[in-house]
Amino acid sequence: MSDFEKISERYKAIQDNVCERLEKMDGGALFSRKPWVKAIGNGVTSVLTDGKCLEKAAVNFSSVQGVYGEEMAKLAGKDAGRFMACGVSSIIHPMNPLSPIIHLNIRYFQLESGDSWFGGGMDLTPHYVDKSEARQFHRQLKNVCDKFDASYYEAFKKQADDYYYLPHRQETRGIGGVFFDHLTPTSDLPFQKLMDFTICLGETYPELYINLLQEKRNLPYGLKEKTWQNLRRGRYVEFNLIQDRGTKFGLASGGNTESILVSMPPLASWEFDVSPEENSEEFNTLQMLKKGIDWINIK
Amino acid sequence: MSDFEKISERYKAIQDNVCERLEKMDGGALFSRKPWVKAIGNGVTSVLTDGKCLEKAAVNFSSVQGVYGEEMAKLAGKDAGRFMACGVSSIIHPMNPLSPIIHLNIRYFQLESGDSWFGGGMDLTPHYVDKSEARQFHRQLKNVCDKFDASYYEAFKKQADDYYYLPHRQETRGIGGVFFDHLTPTSDLPFQKLMDFTICLGETYPELYINLLQEKRNLPYGLKEKTWQNLRRGRYVEFNLIQDRGTKFGLASGGNTESILVSMPPLASWEFDVSPEENSEEFNTLQMLKKGIDWINIK
Repeated sequence: MSDFEKISERYKAIQDNVCERLEKMDGGALFSRKPWVKAIGNGVTSVLTDGKCLEKAAVNFSSVQGVYGEEMAKLAGKDAGRFMACGVSSIIHPMNPLSPIIHLNIRYFQLESGDSWFGGGMDLTPHYVDKSEARQFHRQLKNVCDKFDASYYEAFKKQADDYYYLPHRQETRGIGGVFFDHLTPTSDLPFQKLMDFTICLGETYPELYINLLQEKRNLPYGLKEKTWQNLRRGRYVEFNLIQDRGTKFGLASGGNTESILVSMPPLASWEFDVSPEENSEEFNTLQMLKKGIDWINIK
Repeated sequence: MSDFEKISERYKAIQDNVCERLEKMDGGALFSRKPWVKAIGNGVTSVLTDGKCLEKAAVNFSSVQGVYGEEMAKLAGKDAGRFMACGVSSIIHPMNPLSPIIHLNIRYFQLESGDSWFGGGMDLTPHYVDKSEARQFHRQLKNVCDKFDASYYEAFKKQADDYYYLPHRQETRGIGGVFFDHLTPTSDLPFQKLMDFTICLGETYPELYINLLQEKRNLPYGLKEKTWQNLRRGRYVEFNLIQDRGTKFGLASGGNTESILVSMPPLASWEFDVSPEENSEEFNTLQMLKKGIDWINIK
């Protein structure tokens, strides 16, 4: 079995596990599983909608190949040529606006030249920032990172701050998390260890999110919170369509549009020039959508 | 008065006229008028929300200046350097899903080298394509074009088909209209005539839309049509954030984000892999979102 086949198998198992855990937790709706085949490759898109506490949860596995163009190659500091890639991406939009949106991506790239690397990340986008939740999320990410390399969390947390950012809003997408790309095997961190790192992130993902959800799924909310949730989802849409490299790369390279855009929220809204009242929960949330916050130690 | 000042005045008057006409027609809500000043320039953003038949109508005037970068200059076949630009853009999202979304843009660019040109367009995005409405819309656009140049309509209709297109969906945004850019004064069509052409488009816009709305504003609709409207608005969002040059240029050049994104729909939705039942109204609409349809003579 080639490295690529091995990773594909493990990533598929991650997808199945995420779906199974989320279904069990939700208790109201099941994932529908849609395999697809296109010229660029194949995959399985699993979507759950209108559950008891999940409004829309998507978990994608895909395996694609093609030509790694000059522009992408330059970004990666690699040579252009044929590539193979596989990965899992997932996004969950909860019903309750007091619960956060979560996102996971793990992926493996291999060039015909022999170069290969891992990329991915996990980040949290609360509609309302809750410091204790943010601390818990970042501490768990740090625990995962620390098992592999003591420098990972700090480095990848910074990359998440920089990446999950909307320059036109001067706002981070949420409270960040970890983000990494072009993680190339070395003697200290060989292929197997890097693969295990991404697998470990994928295994932590449902567990971590379920814990966060359980704390909040029954909290009461009203129209005000739903309205705010739709506005924040609007920002999520802006990030996905303007900034997200995976979305851009996917759409531009002839990927499966429906699978790529399954990350979009079920509903989103835009209102002109919203400015929440000072010291409201909405106002306080906007104040915390900044880079460089030390969420691990936030009080 | 410089050419630039003259056009700015005329464009501001277009903005006022559009607002006035739409308010009068709606009869339920008024435009709120927000002037803005930023390093890049200034403008006035007028927005009407939750009217009797207009869910959200936006009319922007802006006057900006800055450096025309290499990339933009290359696109325009011009030299890089300082530029000044002013324009009006407007978008209207009706309440009734049986009514169409409409969009207008007219703009004037002037480089320090002396080069100058006009750009703009008007296009219609029905949630449900109605052949008679599409014919009426295109005939009126042809009438406006024919007053200035016999070749305009055909050329600009084709450009609209090509521009208002979502490659990742292989779908036109709606039934198109006219789109033009880099319209440079010549001896046959001097500055004054080109300016008049854009002014004429701006004057036709509210009149034309009000006629289309009046025919449909009282038609009954239900949840099915509202759901479809939100999905189609999702496509509108995709176009605006992925394809629209004005939006991209505006956001990248430090424009006023709230004014640029005032074109976004009040509410939009995404559902995975929607495929309407064969021969339903929704299905038939999708069949007509193609380039190259002769709307003038459609039966």
